[in-house]
Amino acid sequence: MRTLMAIGGAIDQENPTLVAEFLRRAGGEQARLVVLPQASDQVETGGIYANQFLRLGAREAKILDFQQRDQAGTPEQIEMIRCASGIFFTGGTQMRLSVLIGGTPLEEELLAAYQRGCLVGGTSAGAAILSKTMIAYGHGGSTPREHIVQFIPGLGFTDRFIFDQHFRKRNRLGRLIYAVATYPGAVGVGIDENTAAIVEDDDRISVYGSGAVTIVDGRQITATDVAEVGSRGTVAVAGLIVHVLTDQGTYQRQARIARLPDRPPR
Amino acid sequence: MRTLMAIGGAIDQENPTLVAEFLRRAGGEQARLVVLPQASDQVETGGIYANQFLRLGAREAKILDFQQRDQAGTPEQIEMIRCASGIFFTGGTQMRLSVLIGGTPLEEELLAAYQRGCLVGGTSAGAAILSKTMIAYGHGGSTPREHIVQFIPGLGFTDRFIFDQHFRKRNRLGRLIYAVATYPGAVGVGIDENTAAIVEDDDRISVYGSGAVTIVDGRQITATDVAEVGSRGTVAVAGLIVHVLTDQGTYQRQARIARLPDRPPR
Repeated sequence: MRTLMAIGGAIDQENPTLVAEFLRRAGGEQARLVVLPQASDQVETGGIYANQFLRLGAREAKILDFQQRDQAGTPEQIEMIRCASGIFFTGGTQMRLSVLIGGTPLEEELLAAYQRGCLVGGTSAGAAILSKTMIAYGHGGSTPREHIVQFIPGLGFTDRFIFDQHFRKRNRLGRLIYAVATYPGAVGVGIDENTAAIVEDDDRISVYGSGAVTIVDGRQITATDVAEVGSRGTVAVAGLIVHVLTDQGTYQRQARIARLPDRPPR
Repeated sequence: MRTLMAIGGAIDQENPTLVAEFLRRAGGEQARLVVLPQASDQVETGGIYANQFLRLGAREAKILDFQQRDQAGTPEQIEMIRCASGIFFTGGTQMRLSVLIGGTPLEEELLAAYQRGCLVGGTSAGAAILSKTMIAYGHGGSTPREHIVQFIPGLGFTDRFIFDQHFRKRNRLGRLIYAVATYPGAVGVGIDENTAAIVEDDDRISVYGSGAVTIVDGRQITATDVAEVGSRGTVAVAGLIVHVLTDQGTYQRQARIARLPDRPPR
């Protein structure tokens, strides 16, 4: 099974259930994890996650770091990725990841790892980078406007979902609707902080964590003027389907089914 | 035809096209307008609108003001409403309107005027009050949470639509989704500032103005935990249909059709 775990940023470090869930899905005590900290401008970021994985019981947690594009894809790195059961991108600036890794042999190896069943995930910038066309930056607001968002190519583990993070906190529904309006074939996935969207086999999403995952399905859009609107005007979109899902809620892309978990009566 | 004109607040006073459109729909040069300023705590508010209507060519524009509940429904007021071709509620605090007018003979007369074809509308608080169950106050944010909104009974010109205003500016999608989740039979109508949702025969909405009207149709909600969520938690909702409509866009409630206007190629 191919699995992505996209986390919406601001992981609760006191109670790192999301990190523990990542570890569990990567093999628990058998897990060999690789942390890619390139998005962050803090030198300690990679170590924080690697130590956390080890503290939580990982067999191995290595940092794969470099600062220059021509350092991407060394034999040591390739070997590290080939042995990995989980690959984790830290937060920071997603464009640093695409600039350093995009088009390198390391990118190929990362994509191959995902295909063979290695868990791939990340938080914040590390979630954004998972999409083939990713949201690089933009503005807040609940309605879509021209120029609300800047796309750039991501590493492309999926072209079916466009992830956005810090979703509720930074009020990003407008930009996610804009993204989906520009390409209704992709499903927008807006992830709140300390919350994960776990994507299995590029189809089934389940929610893990304390916030919500907002699914914006544009495949039934009947009309939009996104291609015509100029001057930062509001974009009209008819026929969006939206699901707000919380912990254990699920969404199946192909079947277009959103389900809430059965909860015990209170 | 029964017509409501719900304006999202912050009418551009330099270029009052929304006021002019209200006047036009109330009969233009033949219009007899009544302004209800009770929502506002500024004594001059009623006069500002009355003068604007007169400047734009209304035949008559009167202010129907009072400060106590037992002053609602005098013979003079009843006569004023019976002669009116347009009734306009100013902005302010919508609860002042329900507290002063709800359950009085004046309310009955206002509803009767609407039924006989008198244009009824208002801005901000004056838009909220048009709904039978209205949003009294709440919090911003793009995802629905428990306690995000407080409903109270409005004057009830429509029970099919729940209006919310200052929509994009104050980031109110979350509370409108919450409203619709609690009662999926009503369609949420989030109106941006300096923009109007014009509702004809309690079914057809058309958009007028510089911003957007966001339609949240909950009638196809398949599941929600809104009744179970506590502690200000995030509410899960599956199966919302959302349309973001701009100037001249239309929505038909019964037919569930959203349409964008035909625009000339640029």
